[in-house]
Amino acid sequence: MTGRFRESWDGIAPIGRDAGSGGYLRYALTAPELRLREWFRTQADLRGMPVSEDGNGNLFAWWGDPDAGGPSTGGPATAGPNTDAQTTGDRAGTGAVLTGSHFDSVPHGGAYDGPLGIVSAFLAVDELRAAGVTPVRPVVVAAFVEEEGARFGVPCLGSRLLTGEIDADRAAGLRDAAGVSFAEALGHRPAGADPALLGRFAAFVELHVEQGRALVDADAPVAVGSAIWPHGRWRFELRGEGNHAGTTRMADRRDPMLTFAFTVLAANKEARLRDAHATVGRVAVEPNATNAVPSRVTGWLDARAAAPETLDGLVEAVRAKAAERARRDGTELTVTRESATPLVTFDGGLADRLAGLLAAPVLPTGAGHDAGVLAAHLPTAMLFVRNPTGVSHSPAESATDADCAAGVVALARVLEELACH
Amino acid sequence: MTGRFRESWDGIAPIGRDAGSGGYLRYALTAPELRLREWFRTQADLRGMPVSEDGNGNLFAWWGDPDAGGPSTGGPATAGPNTDAQTTGDRAGTGAVLTGSHFDSVPHGGAYDGPLGIVSAFLAVDELRAAGVTPVRPVVVAAFVEEEGARFGVPCLGSRLLTGEIDADRAAGLRDAAGVSFAEALGHRPAGADPALLGRFAAFVELHVEQGRALVDADAPVAVGSAIWPHGRWRFELRGEGNHAGTTRMADRRDPMLTFAFTVLAANKEARLRDAHATVGRVAVEPNATNAVPSRVTGWLDARAAAPETLDGLVEAVRAKAAERARRDGTELTVTRESATPLVTFDGGLADRLAGLLAAPVLPTGAGHDAGVLAAHLPTAMLFVRNPTGVSHSPAESATDADCAAGVVALARVLEELACH
Repeated sequence: MTGRFRESWDGIAPIGRDAGSGGYLRYALTAPELRLREWFRTQADLRGMPVSEDGNGNLFAWWGDPDAGGPSTGGPATAGPNTDAQTTGDRAGTGAVLTGSHFDSVPHGGAYDGPLGIVSAFLAVDELRAAGVTPVRPVVVAAFVEEEGARFGVPCLGSRLLTGEIDADRAAGLRDAAGVSFAEALGHRPAGADPALLGRFAAFVELHVEQGRALVDADAPVAVGSAIWPHGRWRFELRGEGNHAGTTRMADRRDPMLTFAFTVLAANKEARLRDAHATVGRVAVEPNATNAVPSRVTGWLDARAAAPETLDGLVEAVRAKAAERARRDGTELTVTRESATPLVTFDGGLADRLAGLLAAPVLPTGAGHDAGVLAAHLPTAMLFVRNPTGVSHSPAESATDADCAAGVVALARVLEELACH
Repeated sequence: MTGRFRESWDGIAPIGRDAGSGGYLRYALTAPELRLREWFRTQADLRGMPVSEDGNGNLFAWWGDPDAGGPSTGGPATAGPNTDAQTTGDRAGTGAVLTGSHFDSVPHGGAYDGPLGIVSAFLAVDELRAAGVTPVRPVVVAAFVEEEGARFGVPCLGSRLLTGEIDADRAAGLRDAAGVSFAEALGHRPAGADPALLGRFAAFVELHVEQGRALVDADAPVAVGSAIWPHGRWRFELRGEGNHAGTTRMADRRDPMLTFAFTVLAANKEARLRDAHATVGRVAVEPNATNAVPSRVTGWLDARAAAPETLDGLVEAVRAKAAERARRDGTELTVTRESATPLVTFDGGLADRLAGLLAAPVLPTGAGHDAGVLAAHLPTAMLFVRNPTGVSHSPAESATDADCAAGVVALARVLEELACH
């Protein structure tokens, strides 16, 4: 399996890779991501898996008939009869088992975040077929669009559209930095919520590279996800008075860069005090000239914590410290919550069942995923694959071929467990 | 004069003005600045002043023959004979008196920084002619190119080229943010140093809006410049480890944004301790994503002080504090001096003479000017016009029409003093 993983992985490794940083520029619906979507269709064709779309930019490759209840009779696999086998939750016995992830990256992101879940899904299908497994439910590989929110600003945009968690008109009008709208990039207005399609899925399992070092500490290649920390993005806009850097006395300045800097350090300190996470990784400065005191500095706070009340306390503490400093600096602070994702607890029974099946540890994560969006709509689980550096959203993100192969084997066992009963 | 100033000023006010900010986008050799250069030629033509170029992008409008020693006999003014009148310094008695400034702006800069010196120069010529003054030396109005360095990164590029303080090949290869070189923007390789042209000037007087509040405090409309503080730009590049904002434990991070923030606050504190100026007005973040710990943050320190040793001590203190914090953050600091301008002391005898003539206060400034470059090559003086807000490099920069008119009258008296003897 390690060799087969490497062979498949090499097929997409060059796509969207920046030679300078070694990271990936695979923004949703840009040329590199469109090539990856073509790769998806080719992989599906090679396996006789028809591809359907939901009109929101999400792709679905079906091992089984997209238009019927059970697996298709075409393709390499022989469809089994629909049975009254154990259902997952209260879904119909013929509900499909969905797996997959996303292709898009953050700027100069790593190779694994997203694509690993799609590549592993196709290889898990191969694994099941090679073992002669005949699912009684369709197995569906998905590629969700714009999971990172790096192009249009809203993470999990594809899964939010499918589930109706974002309005189609609002999504249509989201624009990238060049002013291109999501609808323009997609080629049409997104279709929005599709309860009929969603109702066809009995469960969703997303495999993802781990984005921390918990599996290194646990000495295990694969874990099952228990929860996603509540998290959100807050925009701290600081307005001061643009001025000449050479001639304006320090005492006469109203410099928003000072308030920004103080806020960055306060966020770090408050997060450490609470065992939470706070990051200011994005900033915009006007006019951003070496010889000008800025008129405006905008910083984005990404904050996450295990419990909602911890997160609320963290953000409030940072806001209060920033406001106090703004008074001292003579600047004006406006804080806007751009997004907020509540605590997601994955289906506890499903997580326990899969952890038992795989003898794998169960871990929470601080990262948002399409699985977090879908968890509100159907039984959902996540598998994490060990990341030796713990680094993610960076070219240094990594996973060994052996661990990736272990991930494929684990996913195949999970799909067999969920699709054959 | 107030009415004539307003009329002339209104002729250029709309050019390059950004409706959103109210500030100006008049980058060197872009469409708005090229329109201002056309305006310059028109103003010169209206006054019968032939325009010459130095091949570096600087324009010169001559009241007097550009190809001879004395004023031309054409145009509204009658040329006087060359005399053995008092020389300025050891220049020949027929050396021309140069005045003027620049058209280009910082991003969203004010209306007055630069253009006021050119508009006032043409109006001062009118003033002298209306008074029947007959200069014995040519009076030359200059428009220097790329004074701010906002497009090609090197301030006073035009005056540095003319005086040979920057190599023509180096200047030719400077590129703007879009990759266009200075030579491409100019249409040809810059000609570089022109000692013959420079030798034709007996003195330079640059009128400029004040960029601080000293004239407000002094209750005077016009001042004479005494010196330009030594100043420079230092690039603080901080490298850490890009990572996922949601999943990376605070203790595992190497976040260069923290080191940057600490450096901003340290620069502010160290400057206040020394009665100097320090500004971090420009920052670049990689990857600059909300949900990623940055891999690199670069901040530019603009530092200025009355004395060179104060400036050195300031920069060294900021560097030491940044380095100490970098060790704590696990980041790497590289400091690069991008530019450094030594203390400029304007010709003391000339400043005293003009201050006596105008009964005006004498002030130093923290801002660089073409006058600072030319001061090393010929007797140079500056006039400052009161700025009620003290704000500059910002849309809030201002000057009353009455003070601008007082500036024209003062400049006319200075030109008469220098060109008629």
